[in-house]
Amino acid sequence: MSPDNGRVDADPSMRWNGWGDPAKAKELPLPVRALLPMLLGRVRRPEPAATLAEVQLAPSRLSDEDHAALSAAVGRANVDDTAEARIRHAGGRSTPDLLRRRASRQDAPDAVVSPADHDEVRACLDVAVARGIAVIPFGGGTSVVGALDPQRGAHHAVVSLDLRRLSGVVRLDVISGEAVLAAGTTGPEAEALLSAHGLELGHYPQSFRYATIGGFAAARSSGQNSAGNGRFDAMVTGIRVATPTGDIDLGRSPGSAAGPDLIRVFLGSEGIFGVITEVRVRVHPIPRERVFESWSFPDFASGAEGLRRVAQQGNGPTVIRLSDEAETAVSLAQVGKIGKALSKGASVVTVYEGDGIDERRARASVQLAAAGGISAGEGAAEDWLKGRFDGPYLRDSLLDAGVFCETLETATTWSNLQRLRSAVEGALKGGFADAGAKSYVMCHVSHIYPTGASLYFTVLAGIRSDPLGVWEPVKSRVNDAIIASGGTISHHHAVGRDHAPWLREEIGETGIRILAAIKRELDPAGVLNPGAVIPIERSR
Amino acid sequence: MSPDNGRVDADPSMRWNGWGDPAKAKELPLPVRALLPMLLGRVRRPEPAATLAEVQLAPSRLSDEDHAALSAAVGRANVDDTAEARIRHAGGRSTPDLLRRRASRQDAPDAVVSPADHDEVRACLDVAVARGIAVIPFGGGTSVVGALDPQRGAHHAVVSLDLRRLSGVVRLDVISGEAVLAAGTTGPEAEALLSAHGLELGHYPQSFRYATIGGFAAARSSGQNSAGNGRFDAMVTGIRVATPTGDIDLGRSPGSAAGPDLIRVFLGSEGIFGVITEVRVRVHPIPRERVFESWSFPDFASGAEGLRRVAQQGNGPTVIRLSDEAETAVSLAQVGKIGKALSKGASVVTVYEGDGIDERRARASVQLAAAGGISAGEGAAEDWLKGRFDGPYLRDSLLDAGVFCETLETATTWSNLQRLRSAVEGALKGGFADAGAKSYVMCHVSHIYPTGASLYFTVLAGIRSDPLGVWEPVKSRVNDAIIASGGTISHHHAVGRDHAPWLREEIGETGIRILAAIKRELDPAGVLNPGAVIPIERSR
Repeated sequence: MSPDNGRVDADPSMRWNGWGDPAKAKELPLPVRALLPMLLGRVRRPEPAATLAEVQLAPSRLSDEDHAALSAAVGRANVDDTAEARIRHAGGRSTPDLLRRRASRQDAPDAVVSPADHDEVRACLDVAVARGIAVIPFGGGTSVVGALDPQRGAHHAVVSLDLRRLSGVVRLDVISGEAVLAAGTTGPEAEALLSAHGLELGHYPQSFRYATIGGFAAARSSGQNSAGNGRFDAMVTGIRVATPTGDIDLGRSPGSAAGPDLIRVFLGSEGIFGVITEVRVRVHPIPRERVFESWSFPDFASGAEGLRRVAQQGNGPTVIRLSDEAETAVSLAQVGKIGKALSKGASVVTVYEGDGIDERRARASVQLAAAGGISAGEGAAEDWLKGRFDGPYLRDSLLDAGVFCETLETATTWSNLQRLRSAVEGALKGGFADAGAKSYVMCHVSHIYPTGASLYFTVLAGIRSDPLGVWEPVKSRVNDAIIASGGTISHHHAVGRDHAPWLREEIGETGIRILAAIKRELDPAGVLNPGAVIPIERSR
Repeated sequence: MSPDNGRVDADPSMRWNGWGDPAKAKELPLPVRALLPMLLGRVRRPEPAATLAEVQLAPSRLSDEDHAALSAAVGRANVDDTAEARIRHAGGRSTPDLLRRRASRQDAPDAVVSPADHDEVRACLDVAVARGIAVIPFGGGTSVVGALDPQRGAHHAVVSLDLRRLSGVVRLDVISGEAVLAAGTTGPEAEALLSAHGLELGHYPQSFRYATIGGFAAARSSGQNSAGNGRFDAMVTGIRVATPTGDIDLGRSPGSAAGPDLIRVFLGSEGIFGVITEVRVRVHPIPRERVFESWSFPDFASGAEGLRRVAQQGNGPTVIRLSDEAETAVSLAQVGKIGKALSKGASVVTVYEGDGIDERRARASVQLAAAGGISAGEGAAEDWLKGRFDGPYLRDSLLDAGVFCETLETATTWSNLQRLRSAVEGALKGGFADAGAKSYVMCHVSHIYPTGASLYFTVLAGIRSDPLGVWEPVKSRVNDAIIASGGTISHHHAVGRDHAPWLREEIGETGIRILAAIKRELDPAGVLNPGAVIPIERSR
């Protein structure tokens, strides 16, 4: 039943300077092309991007001795310092990453090292510490927060530690509904392996087709089954990590009071404390039924009230998402219904999976209707499900057309949702306006909790030149607005290097000191992902 | 609807050398008194316990300067070094604690210090660090793992930091369903304050009537709404802590990927990193309906299978508990039905609260019946609810009668449940047998998860003399068995000092190093709760 169960992408290798499978690149729909100049003014097509062959890298800084030591750890064939391998591991998939991938001179790690298992990861860390080489753990390469930047820190070289050879189901406990998955297993691989047993993990972030189990854990990912099996961290019951100073294997029981839950120290640690090699997760039978229903609300505020009622009542839909008026209009435009768009208010998509659907749907419908929603059939919800992993392809087409497009997200309590949304929207629009660029800001709620919800923003802007230079201060202003308005600096994209300067304001000086103390204990040489998560200094 | 909403105990002061309100002390039921000699052989009434006036303490080690500095922090009236205050804060409520309370010479903290608010807690910590005084945070005093032992560590004196003056609702956000509660608020106080707004926290551990919000957080408590709002840590959305080296205020949103979730560093930290002064928790409307149903199973194994099905299906009862054959028999004996007991197998209690009860009950019943259960009416479930906070009173009566009685608990995956149960039962029975004591071991499952469940043991033993000396090696053997059989050293009682020697085996050397690194960073002087949680050395 799950859309990607049993279906592994034939070519999992990601477009080197864009999103996903090059064969799936998407043209901008005609109505969107018509709409863009109205929203953003006339934009220029950018200079053609450099081809892979045109990109120039500095020579690898690995010495022959470094190369030999790493080869001894993982085998010579698994230390790759070709330009292509290095470029393919040069960063993640944020819009700034993709803009940097267009240049002819690029930064890249000095080699890509691919261990086969936990013990080889351990051996790589030993070499890194002994020889002063920084290590960037790399799963699916889908970070959008700079967590994969090839920073050397205080070290003479940096390697990308590609974990995709750590793949598969290590152990399966059908009685308990638990699977131990190797960290480099991708979303589709995990679902294919589990589906052979009638089981599902059910974690579907937008990066699902490429991202790995270890990456979900390291970044505290959230999936699109946002009211069902939403947060990955809530599914994790155990974890195995290789740190530079020792291994750790956590999770003896589903509930425990044996001191603080140290699994949570590694969830969200983005490779700064250790390399996650195995994750134990809760799995469940593949749901047999799925029902779609879309709803239309007069506006975002009434839609949010509907979602709040559903979240606080509990036991509702598996997926529930609310698009604001601007996003609703563009979604309608994409399918050629722009005429209807302006009168359409805010749309909600619901999907129900599993048992008791009729009863759950009836309960949720009462709440949605009470908040002013009107049921709008199955169509829009089905369309959303079909296209849910394709958004990033559209961004590539926009960038090709010279339209700046980026996403960012936060979360807060229900009572603070409108204030935070206004603050972020204001920072985005104001920031671009100050740079003389027209912008269009869309927002949706994709994850709900009893006490609050996430806010996910997509911004389009008509930037005439230097999009990176224009974006950086806008992003800074947005982050300041999030912190000032009580939001979290990230609901599910994580911290990486891009958000690190704001983490101090989120968790305070004492919080930073806790992270730094753990870092010093586990990675005293500082070889792991230098500059990620823990802010070194605030540079703004 | 909740039994204790709006009902604060008139006299919250705990019996100094036993459990709870002295006025509520319980006689042993006649059938139990008849049964005990059969199960445990003839036991002797112990020597009469020392009265409060008879207890001798060493003089307080606080100097006049210490006393003055603490008085400057909290006011002279809130530094109490009378014998009664010191004895009332001399430890928790484990059976060894209660046996120690019977002696005429006892250890006790050198004074009891009662700050009024976060700032006064901070001032106390400053004095403690400056003057070398150990601090034992004290809430309801209900620890059963030695977390309140008055250990000085390397310091010249030790004070009990009684937090009960930090009481009440600090902030209430009705829209988001969140309340910030001061750490010293007791369970009944919190429910009374929330019920004025139609809201409930719904956390009902056996210690509910005395334990505090800060204590629930510090110990990772689990409540009896074991399939509903079970784990306290799952309700916590924010926390404020005073550490010896700085404050921390965490929890900006219901979901976040802003690095590791540092709230989890303090949940389960049992006062070794800082003093929790406020906790933000999820609250919900007081449920309007409640339905009871008991079930009878042929044996523990089939009952456990029923609970597993219910847990993995989800959306079932609010409370579900399974007693094994031995516990079922004694429960029946207590109400005078011993004749029926031997044929009764294993009993299950279910309670449903909130919405959709009929549907949830129907779903759960299908699973319980499929596992071999037979519905057995409301009676036993209602009886359980009425008596659910009274178990500890019975223990006092048993101890008075010379019968040793203690409880302990663990948890594991469903597939490992029987193995762990046998191992613990074997260690208890074997341990007592080796000491020449007859014992009777009962077990129940009180908390279920999709992937596993808790196991809670009650043991009665007929120990002729030196019960503490007999119990210590038995408890050690049980803890070894738990670790060897894949259980957690505690599901909800926490670590304290009693379980600390086994924590290293639970979380490994790297795990201990993480805890020690955080401890060094936040409490470099080591004034907070010396010897708790982090094992200093394994003494067995």
